[in-house]
Amino acid sequence: MKTGPLSGFPEWLPEQRIVEQALLDTLRRQFELFGFAPIETRAVEPLEVLTQKGATDKEIYVLSRLHADEGEGDKGLGLHFDLTVPFARYVAQHRGKLAFPFKRYQIQKVWRGERPQKGRYREFYQADIDVIGQETLSIQHDADMVRVLHSVMGALPVGAVTIHINNRKVLEGIYRALGVEDVVPVLRTVDKLDKIGPEKVREELAELGLAPGAIDTVLAAGEIRGADEGVVEAIRALGVSHPILDEGLDELGFVLRACADLPAGSVVADLHIARGLDYYTGTVYEGLLDDEPGLGAVCSGGRYDNLAAMGGKAKLPGVGVSIGISRLLGQAFAQDSLVASRQTPTCVLVALDNDERRAAAQVAASALRARGIACEVFDRPQKYGKQIKYADSKGIPFVWFCGDAGAADTVKDIRSGEQVEATADTWQPPAEDLHPRVLRR
Amino acid sequence: MKTGPLSGFPEWLPEQRIVEQALLDTLRRQFELFGFAPIETRAVEPLEVLTQKGATDKEIYVLSRLHADEGEGDKGLGLHFDLTVPFARYVAQHRGKLAFPFKRYQIQKVWRGERPQKGRYREFYQADIDVIGQETLSIQHDADMVRVLHSVMGALPVGAVTIHINNRKVLEGIYRALGVEDVVPVLRTVDKLDKIGPEKVREELAELGLAPGAIDTVLAAGEIRGADEGVVEAIRALGVSHPILDEGLDELGFVLRACADLPAGSVVADLHIARGLDYYTGTVYEGLLDDEPGLGAVCSGGRYDNLAAMGGKAKLPGVGVSIGISRLLGQAFAQDSLVASRQTPTCVLVALDNDERRAAAQVAASALRARGIACEVFDRPQKYGKQIKYADSKGIPFVWFCGDAGAADTVKDIRSGEQVEATADTWQPPAEDLHPRVLRR
Repeated sequence: MKTGPLSGFPEWLPEQRIVEQALLDTLRRQFELFGFAPIETRAVEPLEVLTQKGATDKEIYVLSRLHADEGEGDKGLGLHFDLTVPFARYVAQHRGKLAFPFKRYQIQKVWRGERPQKGRYREFYQADIDVIGQETLSIQHDADMVRVLHSVMGALPVGAVTIHINNRKVLEGIYRALGVEDVVPVLRTVDKLDKIGPEKVREELAELGLAPGAIDTVLAAGEIRGADEGVVEAIRALGVSHPILDEGLDELGFVLRACADLPAGSVVADLHIARGLDYYTGTVYEGLLDDEPGLGAVCSGGRYDNLAAMGGKAKLPGVGVSIGISRLLGQAFAQDSLVASRQTPTCVLVALDNDERRAAAQVAASALRARGIACEVFDRPQKYGKQIKYADSKGIPFVWFCGDAGAADTVKDIRSGEQVEATADTWQPPAEDLHPRVLRR
Repeated sequence: MKTGPLSGFPEWLPEQRIVEQALLDTLRRQFELFGFAPIETRAVEPLEVLTQKGATDKEIYVLSRLHADEGEGDKGLGLHFDLTVPFARYVAQHRGKLAFPFKRYQIQKVWRGERPQKGRYREFYQADIDVIGQETLSIQHDADMVRVLHSVMGALPVGAVTIHINNRKVLEGIYRALGVEDVVPVLRTVDKLDKIGPEKVREELAELGLAPGAIDTVLAAGEIRGADEGVVEAIRALGVSHPILDEGLDELGFVLRACADLPAGSVVADLHIARGLDYYTGTVYEGLLDDEPGLGAVCSGGRYDNLAAMGGKAKLPGVGVSIGISRLLGQAFAQDSLVASRQTPTCVLVALDNDERRAAAQVAASALRARGIACEVFDRPQKYGKQIKYADSKGIPFVWFCGDAGAADTVKDIRSGEQVEATADTWQPPAEDLHPRVLRR
């Protein structure tokens, strides 16, 4: 029987799942603080939705039924590979029942039939937020995304994150001013600057037909970065002009001004961020860990004009970002840098002296639970040493002993050995022991 | 483009997802209070694990890659159809790293390629708890399951639930005493008592070769029910005896005694509960809504001796139950009996007067969020009436107005129209308005 791991399908031990849950809880709490409403979409979409133009270059898992008869339905369904396409379909489907601008978050597993490699999974969590408007969507939401990302990433135990932003219109405006007609291949090439370096980018741009002078300008633009509106001046200083560039600079300037109150270093305009996916049309985002830029973007996204207008006539413009929580966790677990303080929610093990004491033990346990203290009763009478050993093996900090006829109960901190009299109706563990904690090391 | 619903794959609006999340949160909190640790397994298992003997008679969804080359891997993977089989595989795989008895909860979607019908889905949530021991597992855990179910179901907004219990050994002992050699078909027939009635059961038992006198005893046994050890006496009064019956009666008596402190009517021994799945070997459970018994079991489970011994030599006996949360929700949404008090987490909409006030609005919003009050800033200057209308459309209870130069901020409860002076550093909404609530009606 194949009981081993499957490559690309990560699975965690309970103490790791506790860490994962804590991080997912943090994401949820932060998203909700900013007014994003929860949705969950089915894991399955029609293939024609998944494979529509521009949706993905990822490999899709297709479903079939094990004992399906010839000609039966269920053909043409696949597992979603991201949360953006299902969200677009959801908005198109439920449009009449949603209030706009519609702000939603969505934290779910997605599946990609890719060749597994470091930092790439076949099954993993994505955590997405998006805002969708009807016909128009205020640029304010582009700035809000930075604010949410700053807040969310700051609440995760992963160290400082710098959010790099750019605007596709700025790049498109520059390229068009330089005479480029097919902008997307140039964007994709510039997006690889970090990966393949400027010389290779120069070669590829030449292959795309750009003149040496234009390439110089493209590369000079790619090097521009800065945290304030000085960036806009630097772009103007490139000496090119185009209406789309003006529009992009207005938007980029707005976002930078709106984020001026965030701590220095948390946001930076960075013109070499282009995002490969071609449905972005305005602001784009990439968040990098200050301590581990080599891990790549741990969150990313952008503004799109048309994605959610699936089959409909009216425009549903949106802006959104996605947080790669599985990548962060995979890295943290590989480095053992995030651990739970114990492998069970149990705070107190109620010891069992003998069979006649089961009822008393249950009473104590119920009283503790009624006040939110997680506990379990040891399942059979045994030497206290064995019961303490069980607690220790799971990291349960306290063992409760029911007092004999008339005697008070006692509770022992098995880490320090300290044992005190207590009643289950009032005893309180230290706040840091109530639930398992996430420790960063 | 197919943007419509897919039969059997339910999907909820934000206000319904808020209800679903609240119920899932309640399950999680309850499971943790009883010391169950969280795990999550991959959605995918090798087909040989999913189709092993006795695992399922359900239809499985098989995966393939859309662009897979001939001869490529990834063959023989399917989506899990429950959480018990993946859990058994998980325990077999990670055995050396788990502390036993291992108590886990697992709340995940499962998939079944069944024909969709009322109350049956192709994608739905299951919420499972199990305890697994090494070689032996105390009968105390069988009793604990009743206690957890009582507590969990009591915490859900679904009305009173009665937990029906039985013990497979009691039935097996009776049947063997009556000369039945192949017990499982008889169990399966008795399990259909509610569905097909005693006359049809009588016919089927006769077809299985039972003599009329034996059938009388089987049916008489099926009618026995009661909340205390009187049940054990009633079974003895059937006048049959067998060592397996004695064992079953000891276990059933233990569980009833251990649950004697639960409120009257919450647990009942009910000998016609047999559970169709043939891997149960001892205690079995079925929970029914007192108000809607016709909905069928909303939670169920039992004791098994060998399920988790996947490919290994040593026995890993366990006991567990599963809560059908999607069935409960589907019913509640169809009846409109569970609703969220609003469709967004947002408690306060910060109104935007004009572009110059954006910074002030952000400061107020940040101060509110810092104290856990979910809020959003309106995205563009507009007439206050339009901003209030937006809040109203989403059920946001409060609108915040930043005071002009020197004037105090005010906050308006748009339900009552009451407007008061407030500062974002201290103002607190009524506790019931802080988060969306689940209302039962």
